Amino acid sequence: MNFRSDNEAPVNARIMEAIIAANNGFEESYGYDSYTNKLQQEMQNLFGCWCDVIPLTTGTSANSLAMAISTPSYGSLLCYETAHMMTDECGAPEFYSGGAKLIGINGKNGKIDIKLLDKHLAGVGVHGEHESLVSAISLTQSTEAGTLYSMDEIKQIKAIKEKYGLFLHMDGSRIANAVAATGCGIAQMTWKSGVDLLSFGATKNGAMIAEALVVFNPKIGKEIKRMRKRAGQLISKMRFVSAQLLAYLEDNLWLDLAAHANKQAQSLYRALQSTHEFIYPVQANEVFLRLNPKDIIQLQKLGFEFHVWPGSADIIRLVFSHATQSKHVVQLIEALKKP
Amino acid sequence: MNFRSDNEAPVNARIMEAIIAANNGFEESYGYDSYTNKLQQEMQNLFGCWCDVIPLTTGTSANSLAMAISTPSYGSLLCYETAHMMTDECGAPEFYSGGAKLIGINGKNGKIDIKLLDKHLAGVGVHGEHESLVSAISLTQSTEAGTLYSMDEIKQIKAIKEKYGLFLHMDGSRIANAVAATGCGIAQMTWKSGVDLLSFGATKNGAMIAEALVVFNPKIGKEIKRMRKRAGQLISKMRFVSAQLLAYLEDNLWLDLAAHANKQAQSLYRALQSTHEFIYPVQANEVFLRLNPKDIIQLQKLGFEFHVWPGSADIIRLVFSHATQSKHVVQLIEALKKP
Amino acid sequence: MNFRSDNEAPVNARIMEAIIAANNGFEESYGYDSYTNKLQQEMQNLFGCWCDVIPLTTGTSANSLAMAISTPSYGSLLCYETAHMMTDECGAPEFYSGGAKLIGINGKNGKIDIKLLDKHLAGVGVHGEHESLVSAISLTQSTEAGTLYSMDEIKQIKAIKEKYGLFLHMDGSRIANAVAATGCGIAQMTWKSGVDLLSFGATKNGAMIAEALVVFNPKIGKEIKRMRKRAGQLISKMRFVSAQLLAYLEDNLWLDLAAHANKQAQSLYRALQSTHEFIYPVQANEVFLRLNPKDIIQLQKLGFEFHVWPGSADIIRLVFSHATQSKHVVQLIEALKKP
Amino acid sequence: MNFRSDNEAPVNARIMEAIIAANNGFEESYGYDSYTNKLQQEMQNLFGCWCDVIPLTTGTSANSLAMAISTPSYGSLLCYETAHMMTDECGAPEFYSGGAKLIGINGKNGKIDIKLLDKHLAGVGVHGEHESLVSAISLTQSTEAGTLYSMDEIKQIKAIKEKYGLFLHMDGSRIANAVAATGCGIAQMTWKSGVDLLSFGATKNGAMIAEALVVFNPKIGKEIKRMRKRAGQLISKMRFVSAQLLAYLEDNLWLDLAAHANKQAQSLYRALQSTHEFIYPVQANEVFLRLNPKDIIQLQKLGFEFHVWPGSADIIRLVFSHATQSKHVVQLIEALKKP
Repeated sequence: MNFRSDNEAPVNARIMEAIIAANNGFEESYGYDSYTNKLQQEMQNLFGCWCDVIPLTTGTSANSLAMAISTPSYGSLLCYETAHMMTDECGAPEFYSGGAKLIGINGKNGKIDIKLLDKHLAGVGVHGEHESLVSAISLTQSTEAGTLYSMDEIKQIKAIKEKYGLFLHMDGSRIANAVAATGCGIAQMTWKSGVDLLSFGATKNGAMIAEALVVFNPKIGKEIKRMRKRAGQLISKMRFVSAQLLAYLEDNLWLDLAAHANKQAQSLYRALQSTHEFIYPVQANEVFLRLNPKDIIQLQKLGFEFHVWPGSADIIRLVFSHATQSKHVVQLIEALKKP
Repeated sequence: MNFRSDNEAPVNARIMEAIIAANNGFEESYGYDSYTNKLQQEMQNLFGCWCDVIPLTTGTSANSLAMAISTPSYGSLLCYETAHMMTDECGAPEFYSGGAKLIGINGKNGKIDIKLLDKHLAGVGVHGEHESLVSAISLTQSTEAGTLYSMDEIKQIKAIKEKYGLFLHMDGSRIANAVAATGCGIAQMTWKSGVDLLSFGATKNGAMIAEALVVFNPKIGKEIKRMRKRAGQLISKMRFVSAQLLAYLEDNLWLDLAAHANKQAQSLYRALQSTHEFIYPVQANEVFLRLNPKDIIQLQKLGFEFHVWPGSADIIRLVFSHATQSKHVVQLIEALKKP
Repeated sequence: MNFRSDNEAPVNARIMEAIIAANNGFEESYGYDSYTNKLQQEMQNLFGCWCDVIPLTTGTSANSLAMAISTPSYGSLLCYETAHMMTDECGAPEFYSGGAKLIGINGKNGKIDIKLLDKHLAGVGVHGEHESLVSAISLTQSTEAGTLYSMDEIKQIKAIKEKYGLFLHMDGSRIANAVAATGCGIAQMTWKSGVDLLSFGATKNGAMIAEALVVFNPKIGKEIKRMRKRAGQLISKMRFVSAQLLAYLEDNLWLDLAAHANKQAQSLYRALQSTHEFIYPVQANEVFLRLNPKDIIQLQKLGFEFHVWPGSADIIRLVFSHATQSKHVVQLIEALKKP
Repeated sequence: MNFRSDNEAPVNARIMEAIIAANNGFEESYGYDSYTNKLQQEMQNLFGCWCDVIPLTTGTSANSLAMAISTPSYGSLLCYETAHMMTDECGAPEFYSGGAKLIGINGKNGKIDIKLLDKHLAGVGVHGEHESLVSAISLTQSTEAGTLYSMDEIKQIKAIKEKYGLFLHMDGSRIANAVAATGCGIAQMTWKSGVDLLSFGATKNGAMIAEALVVFNPKIGKEIKRMRKRAGQLISKMRFVSAQLLAYLEDNLWLDLAAHANKQAQSLYRALQSTHEFIYPVQANEVFLRLNPKDIIQLQKLGFEFHVWPGSADIIRLVFSHATQSKHVVQLIEALKKP
């Protein structure tokens, strides 16, 4: 019973069927195929605006390309202190951007504290050329803590990015969970709220190997195809990536899969909220729970797989995915209630 | 009737079945799955030696990681003047290696002239620290011209790399075609002939999205997993890449597919050798043919797809793949004979 | 009356004389001159050990080369949260190291909190290849706050660097002030206390354009000359840099100049310690003082030049240099006492 | 008797006096001093146009910054096959530009063959994103072979750069020799002939440590000060660099010094033209001469210092500088005539 990561889940059946269907004779390579072409259109329909869609195979490359086109090598990007870009990509954003700087801003519940962000920005520039040129802000939505920036918070960040002339990136590795959880439209959550660049994740939510960088701001990324190529990210048989994304979008599959995952997280939360300590608000598909280390071992013995949080021997992370079975969640709740 | 690129061919059915079979419940992510684990073993069986196998999604990333671990940022790598690394990867090798230099060596038939290579190396070092540190040599096998380095030539290059203390990389984007064509074993063609690093291609020869960097020399690449991660190349659901490679190796599928492609090229060559000018010896699955530009247009009108070679209005490239149908080759031969 | 920066001070007369004396006919270029040769010897005499001395023209290049040879591109270096390397070099360390990461550790009085450092290091590695490889620690001595790491603190850091297998860099932009203030020998403060790499500053303390990177650890920096060259830091007429450093070392000029600067800072501190708030202990040649903003303006009107600290309208920084005149300090004390 | 390099010559007396005169009390650091300010004005007077002047300490950093602001990391720059940037800067241009590509164009007499250049450019772009974006051309004037691009040749290159929308850089490490030799004004030779960026050398021609990058095109280099800083090239006591350049320009000192050097080269050429083989036309201050290896050894025994050209045991390079004494040239001529 795997609650370790949505990355460990299998591929959704409809996405697998789309891959099989795409294996139909010859197709032009390197993104000039009919699937990738159609994907551009479908994504523009989804967002209701012009956008440039760059199919990729990893979220790290999406985030890193986003940094590379929004932040010059002598620049810096502000993100949450322990955002994925900061701590879990082995310096990929710095690499892709030619050595630009990530600067961490602290906050509660896995989110940038907006006042701290504003205060930090008010202080930049006094060192002139001795200082990196602050260029962009990155939010993760839903966050690494399984929480959400509210629409109001995103709008406050939009005001800040405009005040300081910055680009806004959203790491949407789990954007589907955020959209499904809030009922707020994805256009509203992204470009209508000032997002210039979105890492649109699909792999964690049912795809096999499929992510996309979506560029809403036509001022940046004019040479992003060359940058993708030199990053070693230009897939020759790209039709098989684009076909996954097309199936993912069709009939709102992406939202159904995310809603399922979120629902599992909520059912656990509701069952245990009065008896257990939840580290963060449960708003998407990740749950952080404080448990007695002895109880953790007991759970593991029962066959439940999850991460004990690095540095905190009494906190576990449970991730719910499109493939999580309700009966396993019921078993998990029972096991957690017992001790 | 597509003779444009083996990258445009579909996925072999056995490889597709392996992908489907791998979609079986949860598996650990980021390369710690059972498929990737088994792949290490199968590759070591194939080569008959220890090696470190790094599954990847593009040949460019394989070549670029190879350069990054063999050539320091203040170093240089020697390759054929118009090798893929030099002209078709948009600077990816330079990027991955932190700005190291590719130096082109000329030669006939798409191959480094071994005497020129030796002469170039004899002259390096006189400028001391003003000069990049020459660190590696890269061969493409089979070459971008559809030719082969003979075993004797590879051994001469081995002697040179040892004389100057360099690493030897083989860009094996089409290594299967080379092995199938020569009947020489892959161990013989690679590590037994001094190859330290092999970009082992599979996508062009029937896989969907699957390449591997194979490191034979334990002195280099100790931190290659971190380098893969920061290159944005660490696939989360890696089982689906490794499963392709496992099926590719099983029962010598890789050699059968390549032999089929080579055979098609040979049949065209034999049919036309006395009437047409072949730019290079036909030794693998690519054919370069001189044609009257009017005849080129005529061929295109008949539905044959191929590249007219950049810069040469009277040269076309025909690529034969695992999926090329013999009847299409017959039609192509007839069409070429007519005018 | 300039208390703004020791970088604004003139060149000491003996150093200027050495420059003039070096302008004597032809000399081999690019560091193969007799001055640079002699400098290697004199530095080894100073430190009482083997070391590799790399003359440079900026402290930023010394720090950045130090990072580049101790921290791979996929690595990270730990330094004080607002160390010069972190906030005032516009990303040069990241640039030189090919995109490696600087990670800030907090603390009091401009110094890394040693317990926090140890705690941070205890937590690294759990993310495996997703995480940068922690490789080095950097201390600034004397610090950007005008304070000193005690010998005991340096030894504790030595124990930590050994525990985790890291390199230790010292940013000695003002090392002379630290050595002069403590009376502790420079060998004791550096390599005998585990320092592998020292940025040895001279420009702030009386030289014109002269810094050096001193490498004590023969395991690193074997190709540092190539790295200096490709950083654009190989001065052709290097004799004029080395001649400055030779004069700087001769008869302990460097210590005399630093002792003068420190003494001025102390005299101000003693005169005002009971009446004014000093932000940090006054241990070298920099003083941070809290003043009423109105009094700051008054001081400026009287002709005193200094920095109002960015982000703190009621804190000023006073820097004392080899060229600070005692009578100006007396005037400054009087002016500060008045209001 | 040193004919090895103008880099080995001493500093001109007037420049040394300017350095001494600049050592006058405190001055603002990091380029905000009065000397650097005045230099901007004097350079604009010299060129008769707006330009941005970036004082630096090495020609390599000037060339590399020029590449970094004209050529993106996914781009390429065309230069002569063995230009200094290509072979003698240990990859600094690649480093500063984040891994961009230098592409060599062949030609006679150390100069790009203009027809080959045009032909090369006519062929670029066909590989789309697989190919680096060609962005700039670089000329060395006077060239590494001691020759000159004629005004007519520069204008032809201007036409090409405009045809393809490229930037034009001039490596003017020895620009003074070119201007002095032709009598053509420096404005005419640079921005009036399409040069966007000039590496303006002074060190080889009598300065101590002083170069400048001159940017004529306001479209590029807006953040060049940050790029200089992160390259470790922002000199704190910059007044001492700018003071050299001011003295260098004053009363056309730079042209007088270069004319002297050129004249020495010419006198040797005239004396020996009918008896000796000159490898290249003698047009500036460098002479390449074919000699019997035995005669080379004899010359060395007589105390003449020069480079035997790497890879050619019977070619020597003689460099004449502002400090070359006529009597030494007379002796050299005599010695060369004897055998």
